[in-house]
Amino acid sequence: MKAIIAEQPGGAEQLKVAEQPLPEPKPGELLIKVKAAAINRTDILNREGRAGYLDNPVLGVEVSGIVEKSAAGFEAGSRVMGLVNGGAYAEYAVMPADRAMVIPETLTFEEAAAIPEVFLTAYQTLFWLGGLKENETVLIHAGGSGVGTAAIQLAKQIRNAKVITTAGSKEKLDFARSLGADVCINYKEQSFDEEVMKAAGDQGADLILDFIGASYWEKNLNSIKVDGRWVLIGLLGGAEVEKINLMQLMKKRIQLTGTLLTPRSDQYKAELTSDFEDKALDLFKNDQLKPIIDRVFSLDQVQQAHEHMENNKNIGKIILKVSE
Amino acid sequence: MKAIIAEQPGGAEQLKVAEQPLPEPKPGELLIKVKAAAINRTDILNREGRAGYLDNPVLGVEVSGIVEKSAAGFEAGSRVMGLVNGGAYAEYAVMPADRAMVIPETLTFEEAAAIPEVFLTAYQTLFWLGGLKENETVLIHAGGSGVGTAAIQLAKQIRNAKVITTAGSKEKLDFARSLGADVCINYKEQSFDEEVMKAAGDQGADLILDFIGASYWEKNLNSIKVDGRWVLIGLLGGAEVEKINLMQLMKKRIQLTGTLLTPRSDQYKAELTSDFEDKALDLFKNDQLKPIIDRVFSLDQVQQAHEHMENNKNIGKIILKVSE
Repeated sequence: MKAIIAEQPGGAEQLKVAEQPLPEPKPGELLIKVKAAAINRTDILNREGRAGYLDNPVLGVEVSGIVEKSAAGFEAGSRVMGLVNGGAYAEYAVMPADRAMVIPETLTFEEAAAIPEVFLTAYQTLFWLGGLKENETVLIHAGGSGVGTAAIQLAKQIRNAKVITTAGSKEKLDFARSLGADVCINYKEQSFDEEVMKAAGDQGADLILDFIGASYWEKNLNSIKVDGRWVLIGLLGGAEVEKINLMQLMKKRIQLTGTLLTPRSDQYKAELTSDFEDKALDLFKNDQLKPIIDRVFSLDQVQQAHEHMENNKNIGKIILKVSE
Repeated sequence: MKAIIAEQPGGAEQLKVAEQPLPEPKPGELLIKVKAAAINRTDILNREGRAGYLDNPVLGVEVSGIVEKSAAGFEAGSRVMGLVNGGAYAEYAVMPADRAMVIPETLTFEEAAAIPEVFLTAYQTLFWLGGLKENETVLIHAGGSGVGTAAIQLAKQIRNAKVITTAGSKEKLDFARSLGADVCINYKEQSFDEEVMKAAGDQGADLILDFIGASYWEKNLNSIKVDGRWVLIGLLGGAEVEKINLMQLMKKRIQLTGTLLTPRSDQYKAELTSDFEDKALDLFKNDQLKPIIDRVFSLDQVQQAHEHMENNKNIGKIILKVSE
């Protein structure tokens, strides 16, 4: 079958279409004819040889497609989507059956491929790790990103939260507002911590979803409420913080949680998928939740697809269309 | 009444016995004839004018004594102990009734005064914030301190945890072992992170109770398990960490929680007290839990009592005996 691998660890130019053996499903796994996959930052780390938690030479961690042979309660021909342990950028992929979700009928395969990673990550960080409660205030950075756009919708639709978001362009902020964000801050033009305080009655946010890390450290500390939770899920602004005063964490009684989804266990991903299916999947049927697609590339255009993500211009997901 | 105040913010020499007005209980509060109080590090911060979260000029946050007039379900003459919002180093103190605990009959007033702050703090950090589960491994620093000696006992008796502790002398470590600690590490002679890894099968601790802060930062990172919880409750080793790499928190998916007990709300303290009464108080009756007293001073010796804590030589609590 055709699949995308990185010839050497390196830039997007290393990505090649290669002939690869058909993957063999183990007991409890589905063989899926892939219709679409989506690009994630973890794929870029893998391409560069910097992630080290997946051993499949074929890139990609999420797909939508059609079950090839019936197994584990799924009929052949079922439309499914979900996380895979690598191997998504290919004509066929295997997926543990307990992570497969039936695609809501109203969605295309491209739309379905835009769901698993970002919606599961946003769901996990908002509710499992962040403990977001009804009507709380949440600060979601990178409001135009894949996880950002998913988190804005989930926080609004499932907890009726007050959503404050940051992004670096009017276009991204307008889009975030259209998804339900209440307060939209352009971090290039405004001090986001001051704006958060104005918006949250000088108390700050109950929860911060932080994709940025080092460069936002001080302002996040200023923006969080006493007893607030802060979930660290990305380092777009660097990993290294100079001179941290731990008393600030104690005085505000902050709970800071670092997380990554891809390296987690199969069991964890199955439980997360199951909880998400129960609480959120139906909301796609009446458009309360919407997969957000930035652009669709063909498998042959995978280099451009990676470069598009690295240029940070996308709003929502970048999709690889694998077959008609 | 006689009470201890700090004449000026400063050292132990500022502590004076002064005549103060009898405190007036508000509705829902008990007036207590104080038998004993205990010294806490937060009292030292208050003496130095550095805490800023209590406005009572009389120092001290925990007492044991006798209810003076019946109120809120407590009979006059009842023996009670608990947290107060300042005002403990005095002949009389007021206490919200929903924080008063009846003293187990087997305990003296001095022993009772050694319980509230350290056992409630240890209980809160191990179970409420740290989520310690049955048979998990917990690393408890400062195993000879007040909270350390309480935490070793609670972790062992309530969760049958594997308890690893650190301290700076053989005497403290031997004492920690007598309380149930499984692995006792002299941090002056051994690298505690290496010893934790040996003791925890190269996986590390599920939970760290950290009273030390900056100087242990790297070694705590090395000592914690993937998905571990880390509760920061003291800064004996300094507040400022020179450089933190946030990727370390993400890779190990660490939950780091800063906390302080004294500035928390009345409601929080009442709920914590109530949960502790339900789950732990009976264990004092058959000696499964023991209050640990280092030394008892009279009210007149309060300066020596503070200096004794500042010299860091105590094992367990330093008590002020207020009246016979």
